[in-house]
Amino acid sequence: MTRTVIESKTKTVVIGFDEPFCVIGERINPTGRKKLAAELEMDDFSTVEKDAVEQVACGAMVLDINSGAVFTNKMASDPRYADNNFVEPMLMPELVKRVQALVDVPLCIDSSVPGALEAGLEAAEGRPLLNSVTGEEERLELVLPLVKKYNVPVVAISNDDTGISEDPEVRFAVAKKIVERAADFGIPAHDIVVDPLVMPIGAMATAGQQVFTLVRRLRDELGVNTTCGASNVSFGLPNRHGINAAFLPMAIGAGMTSAIMNPVRQVEMEAIKAANLLMNHDPNGGNWIGFSRVLDAVKEGATFPEAAQAAQSAGRGGRRRRR
Amino acid sequence: MTRTVIESKTKTVVIGFDEPFCVIGERINPTGRKKLAAELEMDDFSTVEKDAVEQVACGAMVLDINSGAVFTNKMASDPRYADNNFVEPMLMPELVKRVQALVDVPLCIDSSVPGALEAGLEAAEGRPLLNSVTGEEERLELVLPLVKKYNVPVVAISNDDTGISEDPEVRFAVAKKIVERAADFGIPAHDIVVDPLVMPIGAMATAGQQVFTLVRRLRDELGVNTTCGASNVSFGLPNRHGINAAFLPMAIGAGMTSAIMNPVRQVEMEAIKAANLLMNHDPNGGNWIGFSRVLDAVKEGATFPEAAQAAQSAGRGGRRRRR
Repeated sequence: MTRTVIESKTKTVVIGFDEPFCVIGERINPTGRKKLAAELEMDDFSTVEKDAVEQVACGAMVLDINSGAVFTNKMASDPRYADNNFVEPMLMPELVKRVQALVDVPLCIDSSVPGALEAGLEAAEGRPLLNSVTGEEERLELVLPLVKKYNVPVVAISNDDTGISEDPEVRFAVAKKIVERAADFGIPAHDIVVDPLVMPIGAMATAGQQVFTLVRRLRDELGVNTTCGASNVSFGLPNRHGINAAFLPMAIGAGMTSAIMNPVRQVEMEAIKAANLLMNHDPNGGNWIGFSRVLDAVKEGATFPEAAQAAQSAGRGGRRRRR
Repeated sequence: MTRTVIESKTKTVVIGFDEPFCVIGERINPTGRKKLAAELEMDDFSTVEKDAVEQVACGAMVLDINSGAVFTNKMASDPRYADNNFVEPMLMPELVKRVQALVDVPLCIDSSVPGALEAGLEAAEGRPLLNSVTGEEERLELVLPLVKKYNVPVVAISNDDTGISEDPEVRFAVAKKIVERAADFGIPAHDIVVDPLVMPIGAMATAGQQVFTLVRRLRDELGVNTTCGASNVSFGLPNRHGINAAFLPMAIGAGMTSAIMNPVRQVEMEAIKAANLLMNHDPNGGNWIGFSRVLDAVKEGATFPEAAQAAQSAGRGGRRRRR
């Protein structure tokens, strides 16, 4: 039984074959979000805080914290601010502290800068997920010791020094290499969450089938949990949400156990909640029935995050009244 | 390579492992549609004709024609009209002729009355699908000779004289028995489309997993195509379309090759079109991109059948202009 345990100070989330699909909220990420990066440069964390609360209300079980920013205004007076290796180790603990002061879900510490990963691990309470190691030699040697030292699970992305292979056999082999290398460090397979890499279906017609096959093999042959950047599959195509909303249940049916994704999108979350029910990971359908009330509120005119937050508050009020 | 070939006078539809998912439109069915039954009793075929055109525009590749009516007004003067065995053999050929005069897709002749099945087979042009045989002894002995005589494919429902088993092993065994019995009549497995029976997930939490497992086994061990009454999975639960729209891609990922369903529902059809794309059954995404235009028209205020019919007419116009 493969169980990847992730913890905040007060909450435990298990990624596993017999668990509901783990939604890792991707919104807190200044990469490609210029406005957010500019806010962070001015010590303005209001968007981060809004994103944290909204994602959890919408169903994120873990929040990814990516510190991928450079500070373009400060750069003029101090060129070090153009360097991720300088900015991220300062920014990451700040992001972690702000988010965990506000919400109680476990975090996923996400950076390409090893110093930022370690600073995030120091700042995080509980047992965060580390994002990520790859099959690149340098990355293996830098990240796996952190995984071992802090005793945390890690996302393993199946590319290596030769890049991202279009051949799923190669991507499987890279994943296998990472699992074996981790074992050399004493890190068990259940603490590795493999991202088999989802290609855009518009560019590669076999992208969907590749992922479904890879997920099954990773599960059966390596015994690992899996994750992905789900929305990549629909890149470049019209009506992307419709493609994502079919991809997620298919991936879940194939054995995928988590995704790093935007939980503030109703159609994708609806697909996941329904897939949990259909996989018998929603006892008595309680989760679906609760989610249906949110869908009903959306039909009556609320936005999805509004309706989700209202349902969350009502739930809390209900619990309080029962005490 | 399992290929079930269904034909109208002018069109061929292949149900197969490497084909787009075959949507069999279920709307033409007076069972439980009192208004439609009353219309048919008065020789009014306007709803049937509207349903035929609308379903094809929305994406039905085959139309199911179910004659399951009794005529309650005529019953007073002639009690034979209370009997399906009297009404259906007269009604079925009339339905078949009306529908095939209007649309060019192949038909699925659907009745519990053997006389209606044969009357439908006589009236249908091309090679219709017959719906259905079960594992019940009497049904096997009555229907399989028709399948052989008319050289048509048949839907095989996996219940028998003991009823519908909740045990998927029993349902598999019933399907196997039907395939073997058909072989005794010289009917090949590729002309059997097995319905493994979808239970409501609200009543049986394992219903989804049962179907996914059964579909894989039916495909791998018996080499047959599969179908189902897809919407049954969500019976009794709120926001059924959301459940259906996750179930269909999961079933397709597991290997299901057709469903008898309502194609006039946008969310389910969107899920199927996206699943075809993700299974690499939509070369260059052409079908998805065309369908996206229909989705765009719906966002702008059209109903789904309106938008689908407009897109169909525009397509025809375009082809005509190019001649």
